[in-house]
Amino acid sequence: MEVYFDNSATTRCYESVRDIVIRTMMEDYGNPSSMHLKGIEAEHYVTDAARTIASLLKAQPKEIIYTSGGTESDNLALYGAAEAYKRAGKHIITTRVEHPAVMNPAAFLEKQGFEVTYLPVDSCGVVHPETVAEALREDTILVSVMYVNNETGSVMPVEETARVVHEKSPKAVFHVDAVQAFGKYRIFPAKTGIDLMSVSGHKIHGPKGTGFLYIRDGVRVVPQMLGGGQQNGMRSGTDNVPGIAGLACAAEQIYRDLDASCERMYAIKERLAEGLAGLGGVHINGCALRDAAPHIMSVTFEGIRSEVLLHALEEKGIYISAGSACSSHKRKPSAVLSAMGLPKAHIESTVRISLCEENTLQEADYFLEVINETVPLLRRFTRR
Amino acid sequence: MEVYFDNSATTRCYESVRDIVIRTMMEDYGNPSSMHLKGIEAEHYVTDAARTIASLLKAQPKEIIYTSGGTESDNLALYGAAEAYKRAGKHIITTRVEHPAVMNPAAFLEKQGFEVTYLPVDSCGVVHPETVAEALREDTILVSVMYVNNETGSVMPVEETARVVHEKSPKAVFHVDAVQAFGKYRIFPAKTGIDLMSVSGHKIHGPKGTGFLYIRDGVRVVPQMLGGGQQNGMRSGTDNVPGIAGLACAAEQIYRDLDASCERMYAIKERLAEGLAGLGGVHINGCALRDAAPHIMSVTFEGIRSEVLLHALEEKGIYISAGSACSSHKRKPSAVLSAMGLPKAHIESTVRISLCEENTLQEADYFLEVINETVPLLRRFTRR
Repeated sequence: MEVYFDNSATTRCYESVRDIVIRTMMEDYGNPSSMHLKGIEAEHYVTDAARTIASLLKAQPKEIIYTSGGTESDNLALYGAAEAYKRAGKHIITTRVEHPAVMNPAAFLEKQGFEVTYLPVDSCGVVHPETVAEALREDTILVSVMYVNNETGSVMPVEETARVVHEKSPKAVFHVDAVQAFGKYRIFPAKTGIDLMSVSGHKIHGPKGTGFLYIRDGVRVVPQMLGGGQQNGMRSGTDNVPGIAGLACAAEQIYRDLDASCERMYAIKERLAEGLAGLGGVHINGCALRDAAPHIMSVTFEGIRSEVLLHALEEKGIYISAGSACSSHKRKPSAVLSAMGLPKAHIESTVRISLCEENTLQEADYFLEVINETVPLLRRFTRR
Repeated sequence: MEVYFDNSATTRCYESVRDIVIRTMMEDYGNPSSMHLKGIEAEHYVTDAARTIASLLKAQPKEIIYTSGGTESDNLALYGAAEAYKRAGKHIITTRVEHPAVMNPAAFLEKQGFEVTYLPVDSCGVVHPETVAEALREDTILVSVMYVNNETGSVMPVEETARVVHEKSPKAVFHVDAVQAFGKYRIFPAKTGIDLMSVSGHKIHGPKGTGFLYIRDGVRVVPQMLGGGQQNGMRSGTDNVPGIAGLACAAEQIYRDLDASCERMYAIKERLAEGLAGLGGVHINGCALRDAAPHIMSVTFEGIRSEVLLHALEEKGIYISAGSACSSHKRKPSAVLSAMGLPKAHIESTVRISLCEENTLQEADYFLEVINETVPLLRRFTRR
């Protein structure tokens, strides 16, 4: 049996995504910037995609800027907003548990003369709106808080945070990295008070190398990629028609049956939690099961290094992650789990299980069966 | 009959490209940053791709940095090199006929305090190495000259230019936008003296949203996209495995039978030139046929606005371009043709025909048949 429980690293594309990608690579392969029919035909895919995505967000198509992925979306949001608003102030607020695609641009902006406040989280990995309120200042121009944490599935109180930001600092822009939330939660940025929102395609069964940044009408962002002036000058470069069409196709499909999908993932998480409880020395990190996102589970297996467990499971056809894929090649202890106050030994023994709506309870049972065999064995081995 | 003569705007993907894209979307869909087998399997596509591309360029795999396309490659080259070398000087040299993906970053750098010299071209659209030599200064840190012009097919003397740059300004970095040259010329950057080179996937039957920047070992470029530290920190963001594998697959295929492909395109251009000669009031702009790139032809049809001709041909199933696709949505007269000294009336009556190796002489004959009917008709109409 093969069990892919690493869906927060990346997902398999939907078949519908494959079909539209093939069609736009092989038949309707025009360049939307071309004036002839083949160009116009290609342009329709791009405008249709924006309409599809906009309607899911209750937004306007012109508020969707396609990028090459979550990382570019985050970079564009941070650099673009910092540049646009720097005359109003140079203070930026973010958190200690952001993805490196937010963290590293924030650190770069610090070197450019911006001041960045990194907010702490509680033991569940949550940043409280009151903490944000205390940090807001007259010269705060940008607040960046993720929606769902990619290592723990912890969910931030985005709506309350938005309210606090807009009340206390009306000129500050509120950016949300929703890479792990889009496709799991219904998000209506304008209603929620989100000004900028980053989304990635390959986390929702869309193509890799795709994503978008939602930019609320009226919010200024200085373009970072310059060239032919595509996307109203907001992001130059030939429109990636297959990628854009595939992204919209995935977004539409993942929202089609959202509640049932989420319920299915929660049921799997509950089955896993019950099954793990008997083992001893096992901790589920972050929010309580139903308070966390439906698809991510951070689990500490005391006494077993995460890589050892990962490779033991891989031999049985089970794929999970040691931390997040984005940083797993590096051997640094997780900044997210550190910020939550986990002891170092626990951090080194923590794995991430991440689901998609195609996973099954049978897979969970197989996982538990393997875990119940493997963990005692590994523990005996490491204790020698 | 459908005749697609707009291959410099974009190309249809090869079937081999489609196959590898599907395989990496649906089966080998892992994230190369994941530590388990599915991740390692995906990583192999990325390292294999770098090996394939590197061997075509006689380069090292680590010198290939994947991007989201030609525009990102150009932006990374200009911003990254300017940032890396700004302490050595703030003078940049480029030409008046560059693609907007070079032109606009250069203009942005000017605003940041760099001084940019824009070199003129001769009536064929060529920048002479002597002109470059005269512009080089003590504080020149970057010279950016394209290989093949995207509107005229004019070929720059890249090798002589490289020699001049490195002799006169040993600390200057030489960047070449090879988006229209890669797949048409055998390019060995190290031997030629190219330090940085931009390439796009979708111009060579690869996927849209893909490309790379060749960075010669030892040349410094400050990364522009920050995040998870992929590609040795040079370009963060989850590797676009299907895009990267598809790009390398296209590159390998287009070089497999290069000489015969180019000869076939030259033969089509010659057939077109002969067939157009009889019409009167028709001018082929840029270098002489065999001195220009095999695939691009800039043709002025006196007395007919380019959009009018474009739409008339489109009705007969023939797709060409008015100027380059990258700027065709804007109504500005071509900066390239202006720099070559074409009168305004000619510029407005100029179209681009761009071929790929799959075009045929039969298509050329059909094109000529339609043109020979259409042009006299349109001229009669516009003269009324």
